[in-house]
Amino acid sequence: MTEFSAADHQFMAKALQLARKGLYTTMPNPCVGCVIVDAQGWIVGEGWHERAGEPHAEVHALRMAGNRAKGATAYVTLEPCSHYGRTPPCAEGLIKAEISRVVVAVLDSNPAVAGRGVKRLVDAGIQTCHGLMSEEAEQLNKGFFKRMRTGRPFVRAKLAMSLDGRTAMGSGESQWITGPDARSEVQRLRAQSCAIISGVGSILHDDSSLTLRASELNLSHAEALCQQQPLRVVLDSRLETPVNAKVISGSGKCLIVTTNKACPERIHQLQQAGAEVWIQPEASEQVDLPSLLNELGRRECNHVLLETGATLAGSMMSADLIDELVVFVAPVLMGSDARPLMNLPLLTMSEKKSLDIIDIRAVGSDWKITAKPRN
Amino acid sequence: MTEFSAADHQFMAKALQLARKGLYTTMPNPCVGCVIVDAQGWIVGEGWHERAGEPHAEVHALRMAGNRAKGATAYVTLEPCSHYGRTPPCAEGLIKAEISRVVVAVLDSNPAVAGRGVKRLVDAGIQTCHGLMSEEAEQLNKGFFKRMRTGRPFVRAKLAMSLDGRTAMGSGESQWITGPDARSEVQRLRAQSCAIISGVGSILHDDSSLTLRASELNLSHAEALCQQQPLRVVLDSRLETPVNAKVISGSGKCLIVTTNKACPERIHQLQQAGAEVWIQPEASEQVDLPSLLNELGRRECNHVLLETGATLAGSMMSADLIDELVVFVAPVLMGSDARPLMNLPLLTMSEKKSLDIIDIRAVGSDWKITAKPRN
Repeated sequence: MTEFSAADHQFMAKALQLARKGLYTTMPNPCVGCVIVDAQGWIVGEGWHERAGEPHAEVHALRMAGNRAKGATAYVTLEPCSHYGRTPPCAEGLIKAEISRVVVAVLDSNPAVAGRGVKRLVDAGIQTCHGLMSEEAEQLNKGFFKRMRTGRPFVRAKLAMSLDGRTAMGSGESQWITGPDARSEVQRLRAQSCAIISGVGSILHDDSSLTLRASELNLSHAEALCQQQPLRVVLDSRLETPVNAKVISGSGKCLIVTTNKACPERIHQLQQAGAEVWIQPEASEQVDLPSLLNELGRRECNHVLLETGATLAGSMMSADLIDELVVFVAPVLMGSDARPLMNLPLLTMSEKKSLDIIDIRAVGSDWKITAKPRN
Repeated sequence: MTEFSAADHQFMAKALQLARKGLYTTMPNPCVGCVIVDAQGWIVGEGWHERAGEPHAEVHALRMAGNRAKGATAYVTLEPCSHYGRTPPCAEGLIKAEISRVVVAVLDSNPAVAGRGVKRLVDAGIQTCHGLMSEEAEQLNKGFFKRMRTGRPFVRAKLAMSLDGRTAMGSGESQWITGPDARSEVQRLRAQSCAIISGVGSILHDDSSLTLRASELNLSHAEALCQQQPLRVVLDSRLETPVNAKVISGSGKCLIVTTNKACPERIHQLQQAGAEVWIQPEASEQVDLPSLLNELGRRECNHVLLETGATLAGSMMSADLIDELVVFVAPVLMGSDARPLMNLPLLTMSEKKSLDIIDIRAVGSDWKITAKPRN
């Protein structure tokens, strides 16, 4: 086990802070930050990865450091790449710059990197270690890591409920349970996602657009983010999505997922309206959820956001396909005749779904609870 | 509006800290703290009220200060009393000690004091002001203030639910949703209460004792607190409480509240078992809830804790009789067939009960949400 100094922690924390700047833009790549520190302990280079196809964090940091990189230590939040992808390998860049020590937070899970970056550095005689603040670094890229390890995206389910766990009145009356700050936070969750998944029920009920809206994002670069809308995915086994639905007409792409029993004429109409229609080969009556996640992984989706009603949320939960629940709690009681958070029929306490609550914070007058199912 | 200095705030904060020491013991009296500060800014006296019948905070502080009280400032969290009760009036004590300035957090609502304490001090030529940190001082004694103003106790409802707002499985299976830390916190809520109210349903279902248990209180003076058990109140319109129920046999008193249709023989049996039976004159089929609260106010209950099932909790909520909800949330999902937080049938969003969330904090692996209904 490598021992890391207080200074090591401080510089890696800085690198993580830099990495986080890419939260809304790097997908399908991971967020990465890099800090280069000379022998006297001065930061001589800083960089972060902004967008796929553009330079990696190390490249920016090495450029800033110039000659001062020689003999310096590089702190990188993710193992430097060793392969020629859209950009040349960063391990080579660090070697050429005559960096003398490299500290890595976490090894890459990408099969094209996976330990080879570190090996390349070690082979070049650079003192290389990893595992510093690895948990924080994994958290930052949990979507990327999950996809690299399993081929599926990280699934975050967003739900909004009253304090007594209800999402709508018995009649279906529901809109605006939570306040504007919570809705703005949902916009930011969308902006961190590669795809938004919804069920046709929500589309029929609310005609939701599921788009990013610059006015609600409350981020400095909101307009630019809205140029790259997340993929909107509608689960629609009977192709009931109206051709004029906002989910199709909004900017960005809409993927309608259906079964091999779907009516060809209807498929054609939706395609004409601008949607992509994916007929799942394995689906019969219902869309097959694991297969959907595999497909989204294949499309390089790291994070998907489930914004759906009680039925689909319950099905995803029952199938243990949810990685994180983000529950917005409005400070109201909607009563015992109101609709449940999710349709999740359980009979005995032994069937209950255990969670770990990761975070609770106030968002305007509502509260945001983030929890992780224990599988 | 009186202007208070930073030093004034600091000393009153200290007085409030002292007052809080009486949280578990002063009932039916309020918690009061007093700090005496000499002209050089040194604290020369400190005191707090511990128990009804024993000296008030000012008496302790003046005793500690002795001659140094002359010309000093007294900070008191509640208006000093001006009447001979179980102890002599504190206003007189302050005058005799030749205190030159008195700063009061909040005026007393007790009709026997209510401004007269301050008037007595002013008449004696002492510079007297009030309103410093009054909100904190009111919060500390919200039960006492509510009883003085309305004749009824402050009603705190304790509930335990899953994250999806459920209290038991559909079958009724329920015990131990929350962990030991939450149960210990419930013990401390009981210890701050003059009475615990429950419905006969909970007694029949769980045979709850509703007592304080020293081993679970997790307080240094736990054994002493258990000597003075809160009154246990069971709402039992048909007198179904078993004569051997723990709620009757536990140490302390048990009051069974019933209607004038109750069977006289059953009343006699319960009295023989050790319970007091109160036949509500105005109740016919059901126990009358406002009348119950009036009766508990008459018995000098400042705080009552409602520990009950969904039916009684829902009735209390519907009748707007709950002042504070304390909801323990276990990090589990119990599903949509499980039982609701409270039986509260509401039809439209306009009927929803709005709350202000005052506090959310972790209690072991559970979360404690404190909320106040907006009436």
